[in-house]
Amino acid sequence: MDVRHSRTRLIVPALPAAGETLRLSREEALHARARRLVAGDPVLLSDGSGAEGTGHVVRISRKEMIVCVSEIVDRRPQELRVKLYLAGLRPERLAWAVEKATELGAAGVVLVRTARTQSFRASAGLLPRLERIVRESSKQCGRAEWPAISGPVDFEQVLEDEHCRERLFLDADGARFPLRLDRESSALLVGPEGGWTDPERTEASKRGWKIVALPTGTLRAETAAIAALALVAAAAKR
Amino acid sequence: MDVRHSRTRLIVPALPAAGETLRLSREEALHARARRLVAGDPVLLSDGSGAEGTGHVVRISRKEMIVCVSEIVDRRPQELRVKLYLAGLRPERLAWAVEKATELGAAGVVLVRTARTQSFRASAGLLPRLERIVRESSKQCGRAEWPAISGPVDFEQVLEDEHCRERLFLDADGARFPLRLDRESSALLVGPEGGWTDPERTEASKRGWKIVALPTGTLRAETAAIAALALVAAAAKR
Repeated sequence: MDVRHSRTRLIVPALPAAGETLRLSREEALHARARRLVAGDPVLLSDGSGAEGTGHVVRISRKEMIVCVSEIVDRRPQELRVKLYLAGLRPERLAWAVEKATELGAAGVVLVRTARTQSFRASAGLLPRLERIVRESSKQCGRAEWPAISGPVDFEQVLEDEHCRERLFLDADGARFPLRLDRESSALLVGPEGGWTDPERTEASKRGWKIVALPTGTLRAETAAIAALALVAAAAKR
Repeated sequence: MDVRHSRTRLIVPALPAAGETLRLSREEALHARARRLVAGDPVLLSDGSGAEGTGHVVRISRKEMIVCVSEIVDRRPQELRVKLYLAGLRPERLAWAVEKATELGAAGVVLVRTARTQSFRASAGLLPRLERIVRESSKQCGRAEWPAISGPVDFEQVLEDEHCRERLFLDADGARFPLRLDRESSALLVGPEGGWTDPERTEASKRGWKIVALPTGTLRAETAAIAALALVAAAAKR
Protein backbone atom coordinates (compact mmCIF):
# COMPACT_ATOMS: atom_id res chain seq x y z
CA MET A 1 0.00 0.00 0.00
CA ASP A 2 1.30 3.43 -0.89
CA VAL A 3 0.60 5.48 2.23
CA ARG A 4 0.73 8.69 0.25
CA HIS A 5 -2.68 7.95 -1.18
CA SER A 6 -4.46 6.79 1.94
CA ARG A 7 -3.40 9.30 4.58
CA THR A 8 -4.40 12.90 4.98
CA ARG A 9 -1.47 15.18 4.26
CA LEU A 10 -0.85 17.94 6.79
CA ILE A 11 1.62 20.80 6.54
CA VAL A 12 4.01 21.54 9.41
CA PRO A 13 6.67 24.26 9.70
CA ALA A 14 9.44 21.68 10.37
CA LEU A 15 9.33 17.90 10.79
CA PRO A 16 10.25 16.70 14.28
CA ALA A 17 12.25 13.51 14.93
CA ALA A 18 10.51 10.14 14.84
CA GLY A 19 8.71 9.44 18.11
CA GLU A 20 8.01 13.08 18.92
CA THR A 21 4.60 14.71 19.16
CA LEU A 22 3.65 17.97 17.52
CA ARG A 23 0.93 20.60 17.89
CA LEU A 24 -0.47 21.69 14.51
CA SER A 25 -1.42 25.13 13.27
CA ARG A 26 -5.04 26.20 13.56
CA GLU A 27 -5.31 26.16 9.75
CA GLU A 28 -4.20 22.53 9.50
CA ALA A 29 -6.40 21.53 12.45
CA LEU A 30 -9.38 23.01 10.60
CA HIS A 31 -8.41 21.10 7.48
CA ALA A 32 -8.11 17.88 9.49
CA ARG A 33 -11.53 18.42 11.09
CA ALA A 34 -13.04 19.06 7.66
CA ARG A 35 -11.61 15.71 6.59
CA ARG A 36 -13.34 14.23 9.70
CA LEU A 37 -10.13 12.94 11.25
CA VAL A 38 -10.40 11.49 14.74
CA ALA A 39 -7.83 10.35 17.31
CA GLY A 40 -5.92 7.34 16.02
CA ASP A 41 -6.27 8.20 12.31
CA PRO A 42 -3.08 7.96 10.25
CA VAL A 43 -1.64 11.17 8.79
CA LEU A 44 1.25 12.21 6.59
CA LEU A 45 3.30 15.30 7.52
CA SER A 46 5.21 17.50 5.07
CA ASP A 47 7.46 20.49 5.66
CA GLY A 48 8.52 20.88 2.04
CA SER A 49 12.05 19.60 2.67
CA GLY A 50 11.62 16.42 0.66
CA ALA A 51 11.22 14.32 3.79
CA GLU A 52 7.83 13.09 4.98
CA GLY A 53 6.64 11.97 8.38
CA THR A 54 4.10 9.22 8.91
CA GLY A 55 2.14 9.42 12.12
CA HIS A 56 -1.28 9.48 13.70
CA VAL A 57 -3.66 11.86 15.40
CA VAL A 58 -3.24 11.86 19.19
CA ARG A 59 -5.93 14.42 20.04
CA ILE A 60 -8.13 16.70 17.96
CA SER A 61 -10.59 19.34 19.10
CA ARG A 62 -11.88 22.69 17.93
CA LYS A 63 -8.93 24.32 19.67
CA GLU A 64 -5.98 22.09 19.03
CA MET A 65 -4.60 19.10 17.21
CA ILE A 66 -1.73 16.94 18.38
CA VAL A 67 -0.07 14.33 16.18
CA CYS A 68 2.59 11.75 17.00
CA VAL A 69 5.26 11.06 14.35
CA SER A 70 6.26 7.44 13.92
CA GLU A 71 8.71 7.59 11.04
CA ILE A 72 10.58 10.09 8.83
CA VAL A 73 11.13 9.02 5.21
CA ASP A 74 13.15 10.76 2.48
CA ARG A 75 10.88 11.27 -0.52
CA ARG A 76 13.19 13.35 -2.69
CA PRO A 77 12.65 12.17 -6.25
CA GLN A 78 15.74 11.12 -8.18
CA GLU A 79 15.00 13.59 -10.91
CA LEU A 80 16.69 16.52 -12.49
CA ARG A 81 16.33 19.59 -10.28
CA VAL A 82 15.13 22.65 -12.19
CA LYS A 83 15.23 26.18 -10.91
CA LEU A 84 12.84 28.52 -12.66
CA TYR A 85 13.81 32.19 -12.98
CA LEU A 86 10.74 34.16 -13.93
CA ALA A 87 10.35 37.84 -14.76
CA GLY A 88 7.40 39.48 -13.03
CA LEU A 89 3.93 38.93 -14.48
CA ARG A 90 0.40 40.00 -13.72
CA PRO A 91 -0.51 38.54 -10.29
CA GLU A 92 -3.03 35.94 -11.48
CA ARG A 93 -0.64 34.71 -14.17
CA LEU A 94 2.24 34.57 -11.71
CA ALA A 95 0.03 32.59 -9.30
CA TRP A 96 -0.86 30.15 -12.06
CA ALA A 97 2.80 29.74 -13.09
CA VAL A 98 3.81 29.00 -9.50
CA GLU A 99 0.99 26.49 -8.96
CA LYS A 100 1.96 24.65 -12.16
CA ALA A 101 5.72 24.86 -11.50
CA THR A 102 5.04 23.14 -8.17
CA GLU A 103 3.07 20.36 -9.87
CA LEU A 104 5.82 19.93 -12.46
CA GLY A 105 8.44 19.54 -9.74
CA ALA A 106 10.44 22.77 -9.98
CA ALA A 107 13.05 22.95 -7.21
CA GLY A 108 12.70 26.70 -6.90
CA VAL A 109 11.06 29.75 -8.42
CA VAL A 110 12.95 33.05 -8.37
CA LEU A 111 11.32 36.36 -9.34
CA VAL A 112 13.60 38.36 -11.61
CA ARG A 113 13.71 42.05 -12.46
CA THR A 114 14.64 42.52 -16.11
CA ALA A 115 14.91 45.69 -18.17
CA ARG A 116 11.29 45.32 -19.28
CA THR A 117 9.81 44.07 -16.00
CA GLN A 118 7.50 46.54 -14.29
CA SER A 119 8.99 46.72 -10.79
CA PHE A 120 5.69 46.06 -8.94
CA ARG A 121 5.33 42.78 -10.87
CA ALA A 122 8.45 41.41 -9.18
CA SER A 123 8.28 42.59 -5.58
CA ALA A 124 8.94 40.83 -2.28
CA GLY A 125 5.36 41.64 -1.26
CA LEU A 126 4.13 38.92 -3.62
CA LEU A 127 6.09 36.15 -1.89
CA PRO A 128 3.69 35.22 0.96
CA ARG A 129 0.81 34.61 -1.45
CA LEU A 130 3.04 32.59 -3.78
CA GLU A 131 4.29 30.50 -0.85
CA ARG A 132 0.69 29.75 0.10
CA ILE A 133 0.01 28.62 -3.46
CA VAL A 134 3.06 26.33 -3.35
CA ARG A 135 1.81 24.69 -0.13
CA GLU A 136 -1.71 24.18 -1.52
CA SER A 137 -0.46 22.83 -4.83
CA SER A 138 1.99 20.45 -3.09
CA LYS A 139 -0.78 19.11 -0.90
CA GLN A 140 -3.03 18.65 -3.92
CA CYS A 141 -0.54 16.64 -5.96
CA GLY A 142 1.21 14.89 -3.08
CA ARG A 143 4.66 16.40 -3.47
CA ALA A 144 6.90 16.24 -0.40
CA GLU A 145 9.48 18.67 -1.79
CA TRP A 146 8.31 22.16 -2.66
CA PRO A 147 9.89 24.83 -4.74
CA ALA A 148 11.42 27.58 -2.63
CA ILE A 149 10.05 30.96 -3.68
CA SER A 150 12.52 33.82 -3.63
CA GLY A 151 13.46 37.15 -5.12
CA PRO A 152 13.11 39.62 -6.53
CA VAL A 153 16.62 39.50 -7.93
CA ASP A 154 18.09 41.73 -10.64
CA PHE A 155 18.79 40.06 -13.98
CA GLU A 156 22.52 40.85 -13.66
CA GLN A 157 22.55 39.21 -10.24
CA VAL A 158 21.04 35.99 -11.69
CA LEU A 159 23.85 35.80 -14.25
CA GLU A 160 26.35 36.45 -11.46
CA ASP A 161 24.94 33.87 -9.01
CA GLU A 162 23.66 30.94 -11.06
CA HIS A 163 26.42 28.51 -11.94
CA CYS A 164 24.68 25.17 -12.59
CA ARG A 165 25.96 23.49 -15.75
CA GLU A 166 22.71 23.51 -17.75
CA ARG A 167 21.44 27.05 -18.02
CA LEU A 168 18.64 27.64 -20.51
CA PHE A 169 17.61 31.14 -21.57
CA LEU A 170 14.22 31.10 -23.30
CA ASP A 171 13.96 33.26 -26.38
CA ALA A 172 11.81 32.94 -29.51
CA ASP A 173 14.86 33.30 -31.76
CA GLY A 174 16.92 30.71 -29.89
CA ALA A 175 18.25 27.32 -30.95
CA ARG A 176 16.15 24.17 -30.72
CA PHE A 177 15.18 23.18 -27.18
CA PRO A 178 17.56 20.38 -26.06
CA LEU A 179 16.39 16.77 -26.39
CA ARG A 180 18.53 15.49 -23.56
CA LEU A 181 19.68 16.97 -20.29
CA ASP A 182 22.21 14.84 -18.49
CA ARG A 183 23.05 17.26 -15.71
CA GLU A 184 21.76 16.84 -12.20
CA SER A 185 20.43 20.34 -12.09
CA SER A 186 19.41 22.99 -14.53
CA ALA A 187 18.18 26.56 -14.57
CA LEU A 188 15.50 28.02 -16.79
CA LEU A 189 15.21 31.77 -17.37
CA VAL A 190 11.91 33.12 -18.75
CA GLY A 191 11.57 36.75 -19.75
CA PRO A 192 8.76 39.26 -19.31
CA GLU A 193 5.82 39.84 -21.67
CA GLY A 194 7.78 42.61 -23.38
CA GLY A 195 10.64 40.21 -24.15
CA TRP A 196 14.38 40.51 -23.61
CA THR A 197 16.51 43.44 -24.67
CA ASP A 198 19.45 42.81 -26.99
CA PRO A 199 22.03 43.58 -24.26
CA GLU A 200 20.34 41.05 -21.93
CA ARG A 201 20.42 38.36 -24.60
CA THR A 202 24.07 39.07 -25.42
CA GLU A 203 25.13 39.16 -21.78
CA ALA A 204 23.37 35.85 -20.96
CA SER A 205 24.99 34.14 -23.94
CA LYS A 206 28.42 35.49 -22.96
CA ARG A 207 27.93 34.06 -19.46
CA GLY A 208 27.27 30.57 -20.83
CA TRP A 209 23.47 30.44 -20.91
CA LYS A 210 22.10 28.53 -23.91
CA ILE A 211 19.62 30.66 -25.87
CA VAL A 212 16.82 28.19 -26.70
CA ALA A 213 13.35 28.42 -28.25
CA LEU A 214 10.25 26.35 -27.56
CA PRO A 215 8.91 24.23 -30.43
CA THR A 216 5.70 26.28 -30.51
CA GLY A 217 4.90 29.79 -31.68
CA THR A 218 4.50 32.90 -29.57
CA LEU A 219 3.49 32.05 -26.02
CA ARG A 220 2.64 34.16 -23.02
CA ALA A 221 5.44 34.16 -20.44
CA GLU A 222 3.66 31.86 -17.96
CA THR A 223 2.79 29.39 -20.72
CA ALA A 224 6.40 29.38 -21.92
CA ALA A 225 7.56 28.63 -18.36
CA ILE A 226 5.19 25.68 -17.97
CA ALA A 227 5.85 24.26 -21.45
CA ALA A 228 9.61 24.52 -20.80
CA LEU A 229 9.31 22.73 -17.44
CA ALA A 230 7.42 19.88 -19.14
CA LEU A 231 10.11 19.63 -21.83
CA VAL A 232 12.91 19.65 -19.26
CA ALA A 233 11.20 16.80 -17.38
CA ALA A 234 10.93 14.81 -20.62
CA ALA A 235 14.50 15.62 -21.68
CA ALA A 236 15.89 14.53 -18.33
CA LYS A 237 14.15 11.16 -18.45
CA ARG A 238 15.41 10.17 -21.87
CA MET B 1 8.80 43.70 -42.12
CA ASP B 2 6.48 41.14 -40.59
CA VAL B 3 3.05 42.72 -40.86
CA ARG B 4 1.75 40.54 -38.08
CA HIS B 5 3.62 42.63 -35.56
CA SER B 6 2.85 46.09 -36.86
CA ARG B 7 -0.88 45.90 -37.68
CA THR B 8 -3.82 45.80 -35.33
CA ARG B 9 -5.48 42.41 -35.49
CA LEU B 10 -9.28 42.45 -35.82
CA ILE B 11 -11.65 39.52 -35.65
CA VAL B 12 -14.28 38.99 -38.36
CA PRO B 13 -16.90 36.24 -38.70
CA ALA B 14 -15.64 35.25 -42.17
CA LEU B 15 -12.93 36.72 -44.40
CA PRO B 16 -14.24 38.28 -47.64
CA ALA B 17 -12.38 38.07 -50.94
CA ALA B 18 -9.49 40.44 -51.67
CA GLY B 19 -10.73 43.83 -52.81
CA GLU B 20 -14.00 43.68 -50.86
CA THR B 21 -15.01 45.96 -48.01
CA LEU B 22 -16.43 44.79 -44.72
CA ARG B 23 -18.39 46.28 -41.82
CA LEU B 24 -16.99 45.19 -38.44
CA SER B 25 -18.81 44.18 -35.27
CA ARG B 26 -19.39 46.81 -32.60
CA GLU B 27 -16.97 44.97 -30.30
CA GLU B 28 -14.13 45.10 -32.82
CA ALA B 29 -14.90 48.72 -33.69
CA LEU B 30 -14.55 49.59 -29.98
CA HIS B 31 -11.26 47.72 -29.84
CA ALA B 32 -10.03 49.59 -32.92
CA ARG B 33 -11.04 52.96 -31.44
CA ALA B 34 -9.25 52.06 -28.20
CA ARG B 35 -6.14 51.44 -30.31
CA ARG B 36 -6.71 54.93 -31.81
CA LEU B 37 -7.02 53.67 -35.38
CA VAL B 38 -8.01 56.21 -37.98
CA ALA B 39 -9.01 55.97 -41.65
CA GLY B 40 -6.09 54.71 -43.72
CA ASP B 41 -4.44 52.71 -40.92
CA PRO B 42 -3.36 49.18 -41.86
CA VAL B 43 -5.15 46.25 -40.15
CA LEU B 44 -4.95 42.48 -40.10
CA LEU B 45 -8.16 40.43 -40.23
CA SER B 46 -8.62 36.93 -38.80
CA ASP B 47 -11.58 34.58 -38.92
CA GLY B 48 -9.81 31.64 -37.28
CA SER B 49 -9.63 29.64 -40.51
CA GLY B 50 -5.87 29.84 -40.83
CA ALA B 51 -6.09 32.53 -43.51
CA GLU B 52 -5.43 36.19 -42.77
CA GLY B 53 -6.49 39.34 -44.56
CA THR B 54 -4.37 42.45 -44.80
CA GLY B 55 -6.27 45.67 -45.35
CA HIS B 56 -6.87 49.18 -44.10
CA VAL B 57 -9.50 51.23 -42.31
CA VAL B 58 -11.90 52.95 -44.72
CA ARG B 59 -14.10 54.70 -42.17
CA ILE B 60 -14.33 54.59 -38.40
CA SER B 61 -16.79 56.29 -36.10
CA ARG B 62 -18.56 55.61 -32.83
CA LYS B 63 -21.24 53.77 -34.76
CA GLU B 64 -19.44 51.80 -37.41
CA MET B 65 -16.16 50.68 -38.83
CA ILE B 66 -15.52 49.75 -42.44
CA VAL B 67 -12.34 48.07 -43.63
CA CYS B 68 -11.13 47.26 -47.12
CA VAL B 69 -9.29 43.96 -47.63
CA SER B 70 -6.31 44.06 -49.98
CA GLU B 71 -4.94 40.52 -49.76
CA ILE B 72 -5.77 37.10 -48.29
CA VAL B 73 -2.80 35.01 -47.14
CA ASP B 74 -2.76 31.41 -45.90
CA ARG B 75 -1.03 31.34 -42.52
CA ARG B 76 -1.65 27.72 -41.61
CA PRO B 77 1.50 26.48 -39.90
CA GLN B 78 3.04 23.31 -41.31
CA GLU B 79 2.81 21.61 -37.96
CA LEU B 80 1.22 18.54 -36.52
CA ARG B 81 -2.46 19.14 -35.84
CA VAL B 82 -3.50 18.10 -32.34
CA LYS B 83 -7.04 17.70 -31.15
CA LEU B 84 -7.44 17.88 -27.39
CA TYR B 85 -10.23 15.86 -25.77
CA LEU B 86 -10.73 17.12 -22.26
CA ALA B 87 -13.03 15.87 -19.51
CA GLY B 88 -14.93 18.64 -17.73
CA LEU B 89 -13.09 20.68 -15.12
CA ARG B 90 -13.90 23.53 -12.78
CA PRO B 91 -14.74 26.58 -14.95
CA GLU B 92 -11.64 28.66 -14.17
CA ARG B 93 -9.37 25.67 -14.81
CA LEU B 94 -11.16 24.86 -18.04
CA ALA B 95 -10.75 28.49 -19.11
CA TRP B 96 -7.01 28.31 -18.45
CA ALA B 97 -6.68 25.03 -20.32
CA VAL B 98 -8.46 26.48 -23.36
CA GLU B 99 -6.43 29.71 -23.32
CA LYS B 100 -3.17 27.72 -23.13
CA ALA B 101 -4.28 25.11 -25.70
CA THR B 102 -4.89 28.01 -28.11
CA GLU B 103 -1.40 29.41 -27.51
CA LEU B 104 0.13 25.96 -27.97
CA GLY B 105 -1.62 25.56 -31.31
CA ALA B 106 -4.26 22.93 -30.63
CA ALA B 107 -6.49 22.40 -33.67
CA GLY B 108 -9.55 21.72 -31.54
CA VAL B 109 -10.75 21.25 -27.98
CA VAL B 110 -13.60 18.84 -27.33
CA LEU B 111 -15.34 18.60 -23.94
CA VAL B 112 -15.83 14.96 -22.97
CA ARG B 113 -18.19 13.31 -20.50
CA THR B 114 -16.45 10.42 -18.77
CA ALA B 115 -17.70 8.12 -16.02
CA ARG B 116 -16.20 10.41 -13.38
CA THR B 117 -17.02 13.76 -15.00
CA GLN B 118 -19.64 15.78 -13.17
CA SER B 119 -22.13 16.52 -15.92
CA PHE B 120 -22.32 20.29 -15.31
CA ARG B 121 -18.52 20.48 -15.83
CA ALA B 122 -18.94 19.40 -19.46
CA SER B 123 -22.04 21.18 -20.73
CA ALA B 124 -22.79 23.04 -23.94
CA GLY B 125 -23.55 26.13 -21.86
CA LEU B 126 -19.80 26.58 -21.31
CA LEU B 127 -19.00 26.86 -25.02
CA PRO B 128 -19.68 30.57 -25.67
CA ARG B 129 -17.31 31.63 -22.88
CA LEU B 130 -14.64 29.22 -24.08
CA GLU B 131 -14.99 30.49 -27.65
CA ARG B 132 -14.49 34.03 -26.38
CA ILE B 133 -11.31 32.91 -24.61
CA VAL B 134 -10.05 31.30 -27.82
CA ARG B 135 -10.56 34.53 -29.77
CA GLU B 136 -8.81 36.64 -27.12
CA SER B 137 -5.91 34.23 -26.78
CA SER B 138 -5.47 34.01 -30.58
CA LYS B 139 -5.40 37.76 -30.86
CA GLN B 140 -2.85 37.97 -28.04
CA CYS B 141 -0.39 35.52 -29.54
CA GLY B 142 -1.04 36.29 -33.19
CA ARG B 143 -2.46 32.93 -34.25
CA ALA B 144 -4.52 32.94 -37.44
CA GLU B 145 -5.91 29.44 -36.90
CA TRP B 146 -7.95 28.86 -33.77
CA PRO B 147 -9.01 25.66 -32.08
CA ALA B 148 -12.65 24.85 -32.67
CA ILE B 149 -14.43 24.33 -29.34
CA SER B 150 -17.04 21.60 -29.29
CA GLY B 151 -18.88 19.04 -27.19
CA PRO B 152 -19.86 17.81 -24.80
CA VAL B 153 -19.41 14.34 -26.25
CA ASP B 154 -19.69 11.05 -24.38
CA PHE B 155 -16.45 9.12 -23.88
CA GLU B 156 -17.79 6.17 -25.91
CA GLN B 157 -18.61 8.54 -28.76
CA VAL B 158 -15.03 9.85 -28.83
CA LEU B 159 -13.73 6.31 -29.22
CA GLU B 160 -16.29 5.74 -31.95
CA ASP B 161 -15.59 8.95 -33.89
CA GLU B 162 -11.88 9.66 -33.60
CA HIS B 163 -9.85 7.75 -36.15
CA CYS B 164 -6.62 9.72 -36.57
CA ARG B 165 -3.55 7.47 -36.53
CA GLU B 166 -1.85 8.86 -33.43
CA ARG B 167 -4.27 8.65 -30.52
CA LEU B 168 -2.78 9.26 -27.06
CA PHE B 169 -4.71 8.44 -23.88
CA LEU B 170 -3.11 10.12 -20.85
CA ASP B 171 -2.86 7.94 -17.78
CA ALA B 172 -0.39 7.97 -14.87
CA ASP B 173 0.26 4.23 -15.30
CA GLY B 174 0.83 4.45 -19.06
CA ALA B 175 3.92 3.84 -21.16
CA ARG B 176 6.53 6.51 -21.76
CA PHE B 177 5.27 9.53 -23.69
CA PRO B 178 6.41 9.15 -27.35
CA LEU B 179 9.60 10.93 -28.45
CA ARG B 180 8.54 11.22 -32.06
CA LEU B 181 5.23 11.71 -33.77
CA ASP B 182 5.40 11.41 -37.52
CA ARG B 183 1.70 11.59 -38.23
CA GLU B 184 0.07 14.68 -39.65
CA SER B 185 -2.54 14.74 -36.94
CA SER B 186 -2.94 13.37 -33.46
CA ALA B 187 -5.52 13.25 -30.70
CA LEU B 188 -4.91 13.66 -26.99
CA LEU B 189 -7.41 12.46 -24.41
CA VAL B 190 -7.13 13.85 -20.87
CA GLY B 191 -9.28 12.46 -18.06
CA PRO B 192 -11.10 14.17 -15.21
CA GLU B 193 -9.67 14.97 -11.75
CA GLY B 194 -11.05 11.68 -10.46
CA GLY B 195 -9.16 9.74 -13.12
CA TRP B 196 -10.25 7.04 -15.55
CA THR B 197 -12.19 3.93 -14.63
CA ASP B 198 -10.71 0.54 -15.49
CA PRO B 199 -13.35 -0.16 -18.17
CA GLU B 200 -12.58 3.20 -19.84
CA ARG B 201 -8.85 2.44 -19.89
CA THR B 202 -9.45 -1.05 -21.29
CA GLU B 203 -11.88 0.13 -23.93
CA ALA B 204 -9.57 2.92 -25.15
CA SER B 205 -6.66 0.51 -25.42
CA LYS B 206 -8.80 -2.00 -27.33
CA ARG B 207 -9.75 0.76 -29.78
CA GLY B 208 -6.11 1.52 -30.55
CA TRP B 209 -5.42 4.47 -28.24
CA LYS B 210 -1.89 4.42 -26.79
CA ILE B 211 -1.98 4.62 -23.01
CA VAL B 212 0.85 7.04 -22.18
CA ALA B 213 2.11 8.81 -19.07
CA LEU B 214 3.75 12.20 -18.68
CA PRO B 215 7.36 12.26 -17.44
CA THR B 216 6.29 14.10 -14.28
CA GLY B 217 4.40 13.04 -11.18
CA THR B 218 0.75 13.62 -10.38
CA LEU B 219 -0.63 16.63 -12.22
CA ARG B 220 -3.97 18.35 -12.21
CA ALA B 221 -5.96 17.63 -15.36
CA GLU B 222 -5.43 21.06 -16.94
CA THR B 223 -1.69 20.91 -16.23
CA ALA B 224 -1.50 17.45 -17.79
CA ALA B 225 -3.25 18.77 -20.91
CA ILE B 226 -0.85 21.70 -21.29
CA ALA B 227 2.28 19.63 -20.57
CA ALA B 228 1.12 17.02 -23.09
CA LEU B 229 0.50 19.65 -25.79
CA ALA B 230 4.04 21.01 -25.25
CA LEU B 231 5.48 17.49 -25.55
CA VAL B 232 3.48 16.75 -28.70
CA ALA B 233 4.79 19.97 -30.28
CA ALA B 234 8.36 18.96 -29.41
CA ALA B 235 7.87 15.35 -30.57
CA ALA B 236 6.45 16.49 -33.91
CA LYS B 237 9.40 18.76 -34.65
CA ARG B 238 12.10 16.15 -34.07
